[in-house]
Amino acid sequence: MTVRIDSATRNQLQEWEKELETQYQRICQHELNLDLTRGKPSAEQLHLSDRLDGILNGDYRSPDGIDTRNYGGLDGLPCSRALGADILQVPTEEVMAGGNSSLTLMYHAVLTGYLFGFAGTKPWREMAAPKFLCPVPGYDRHFTICEQLGIGMVNVPMTATGPDMDTVEKLVREDQEIIGMWCVPKFSNPTGVTYNQDTVTRLAQLGQVANPGFRIFWDNAYAIHDLDQHVNLPSIRSATIENDTTDSVIQFASTSKVTHAGAGIAFVSASSANLDSLKKQMQAMTIGPDKVNQLRHSRLFPEFTLLKEHMQQHAEILKPKFECVLKHLENAFGDSDLGSWEKPHGGYFISFDTRPGCATEVVRLAAEAGVKLTPAGATFPYGKDPENRNIRIAPSFPPLEELDTAMSVLVLCIKLASVREQLQKA
Amino acid sequence: MTVRIDSATRNQLQEWEKELETQYQRICQHELNLDLTRGKPSAEQLHLSDRLDGILNGDYRSPDGIDTRNYGGLDGLPCSRALGADILQVPTEEVMAGGNSSLTLMYHAVLTGYLFGFAGTKPWREMAAPKFLCPVPGYDRHFTICEQLGIGMVNVPMTATGPDMDTVEKLVREDQEIIGMWCVPKFSNPTGVTYNQDTVTRLAQLGQVANPGFRIFWDNAYAIHDLDQHVNLPSIRSATIENDTTDSVIQFASTSKVTHAGAGIAFVSASSANLDSLKKQMQAMTIGPDKVNQLRHSRLFPEFTLLKEHMQQHAEILKPKFECVLKHLENAFGDSDLGSWEKPHGGYFISFDTRPGCATEVVRLAAEAGVKLTPAGATFPYGKDPENRNIRIAPSFPPLEELDTAMSVLVLCIKLASVREQLQKA
Repeated sequence: MTVRIDSATRNQLQEWEKELETQYQRICQHELNLDLTRGKPSAEQLHLSDRLDGILNGDYRSPDGIDTRNYGGLDGLPCSRALGADILQVPTEEVMAGGNSSLTLMYHAVLTGYLFGFAGTKPWREMAAPKFLCPVPGYDRHFTICEQLGIGMVNVPMTATGPDMDTVEKLVREDQEIIGMWCVPKFSNPTGVTYNQDTVTRLAQLGQVANPGFRIFWDNAYAIHDLDQHVNLPSIRSATIENDTTDSVIQFASTSKVTHAGAGIAFVSASSANLDSLKKQMQAMTIGPDKVNQLRHSRLFPEFTLLKEHMQQHAEILKPKFECVLKHLENAFGDSDLGSWEKPHGGYFISFDTRPGCATEVVRLAAEAGVKLTPAGATFPYGKDPENRNIRIAPSFPPLEELDTAMSVLVLCIKLASVREQLQKA
Repeated sequence: MTVRIDSATRNQLQEWEKELETQYQRICQHELNLDLTRGKPSAEQLHLSDRLDGILNGDYRSPDGIDTRNYGGLDGLPCSRALGADILQVPTEEVMAGGNSSLTLMYHAVLTGYLFGFAGTKPWREMAAPKFLCPVPGYDRHFTICEQLGIGMVNVPMTATGPDMDTVEKLVREDQEIIGMWCVPKFSNPTGVTYNQDTVTRLAQLGQVANPGFRIFWDNAYAIHDLDQHVNLPSIRSATIENDTTDSVIQFASTSKVTHAGAGIAFVSASSANLDSLKKQMQAMTIGPDKVNQLRHSRLFPEFTLLKEHMQQHAEILKPKFECVLKHLENAFGDSDLGSWEKPHGGYFISFDTRPGCATEVVRLAAEAGVKLTPAGATFPYGKDPENRNIRIAPSFPPLEELDTAMSVLVLCIKLASVREQLQKA
């Protein structure tokens, strides 16, 4: 049944509602318990790295002769920094390798800017109203960091090539208290978009006009997480070198969605001035990261090519799941006016925009039918989606069969919510 | 040669200086390269836990059925929290198990108090001059946290039973901006002293008169690190329950000096109100700790008795080293007026107090002779030892033979510096 709302009569809408309502009631009786909320790897994916435990074979010494079992080394092991450098395509000396969470490194980087300022610039907390630009929809955990520290957030719409740069440039020029910006530049969370060269260049140029303390938080979480074809993310580092703004960007990555999600290693890359500021803050809170686990990762991936082969195995598991979601959306909405979505070539999410005002109701209906979705609004600062339309679909965790069922429910809920919304308006 | 300075004539001092100077020059020619700086376990100790890597044998599921490889669980695994509870002798539900560093948990606890306040009390940063009491000599990394956040520090002298409680009580009563206190209650860093019942009780009573936001940071780093006889630390938890001050203490411990120093797990224990505040802050910076490594530790120590047996093996390695240091000090200074020290029954340090004004010169002389010591003053806030007399000796890392040589050098440097200092005064 193809639903096209804008051209439907009231009678037609009422008929649809009745029919959809019947289908929905039938589904509710199945007492499903399915989860499309968080971007967690599946057990099958995690299993790809199970060699990690035991891989050291009693030899705890790093290739550089460091006893990884003991204290020390805030920068991380040289071999781990090299791994991060391969992932981010930057020089090893610009990389620190950390613990099990890039979010932690981001938090400490924001804290550094907030409490002390980067590279001799003014601490953000001394400003009247420091704020970050937040491309939306975006990643809720980024927004939580700002919210906790009382850093304001300004929404910027995402386009199919990255954040709307006209808006970004205008805001940065007009407001010198914009001191940061969140970016997930490749397979963006949740839209799946990869920034193009024009976007990357213009982002690198912001440092020429922004507050000197301004920093772009370049969360390259899906740097090597291509699904089918290889997607190239233009180098932000090269762009900042060309524009003499190397201090304006701090890059992050991790192996969380490469090896074991909760037990991987994280990376930060930045200019030496930025790294010095970050390390000054971090050395008060740690003697150093878990080097034993870092060494395990270097043993698993002694060469970058092995890491890339490993990622292909992930892709083979994930691809059918993405295809399943896209097939449901295409079949149900390809010829409708009920919503829009991007078709990502990697990453962990598919983002669906309903007609305005429907997202909360879709999530509620799905929950009642036993399908958990990320709360509507979660992909926006303060949890507020101004148009109440974005829904983040995370297909990685459930088995394919469950995903298929969950998508049938979701599609039905979108239809039902859309028809009801239109009937209420009419 | 026994040196007693106060009763020596100038001639005698000059003769000693000449003789000591000759010995010192001879040692300098050996071009030693020895290190008594940090409390790092030796390779032999680290080796005791080498089973950790590979201990999972492909089974990444915790006893409670959690897939430790995936994201989630800010509190840590239930079995790890139980391990922390055994170490700290508190109920499991009052424990969170974290990553590889209790220092990180302490940092986040201080940050929580500073930025947000604990349990609804005023954030410390809103006070005119928030400050911590610091028993001295103490642990430099504690002091660095306060210094970085601009929290003032007030020295309190250590006695043989803990901090001088008359001073502590007077300061807390008189100054409501004292909002914290550092304690290493068992085998204190660096004096080796364990707090007695009277000290613990009086500390637990501070919460009745202090600012409601006041928190004792109870860093029980050496909770199970007894060398010869078992030393009992009275329970601060029981004392706070008796005095209705359970919110006033936050306890910390780790396996850093139990398993692998840089790759262990850390614990924090507190009232539910305090843990709620801490978790609210921490959930912005991490999804959760490395649960795989937590599980490894639970597999290594499925029972607390096994952990205690493991600690006896550490003691057997450490005991001869402590005996070596104490023998040198006793032989050289037992019958002198050149310094004083405690004889610890556990922990990682021996603290030596020279005659006033000599510590910097001792450290300098030792460095020139090839023996690295912790910088003089490091055991005091801001690196300033007001009497310039405390020297922290860390005997754990070097092999016994090297330690023996290093101690001969240290003893000589103490004698030489003391004689010279007296000659300059005279």
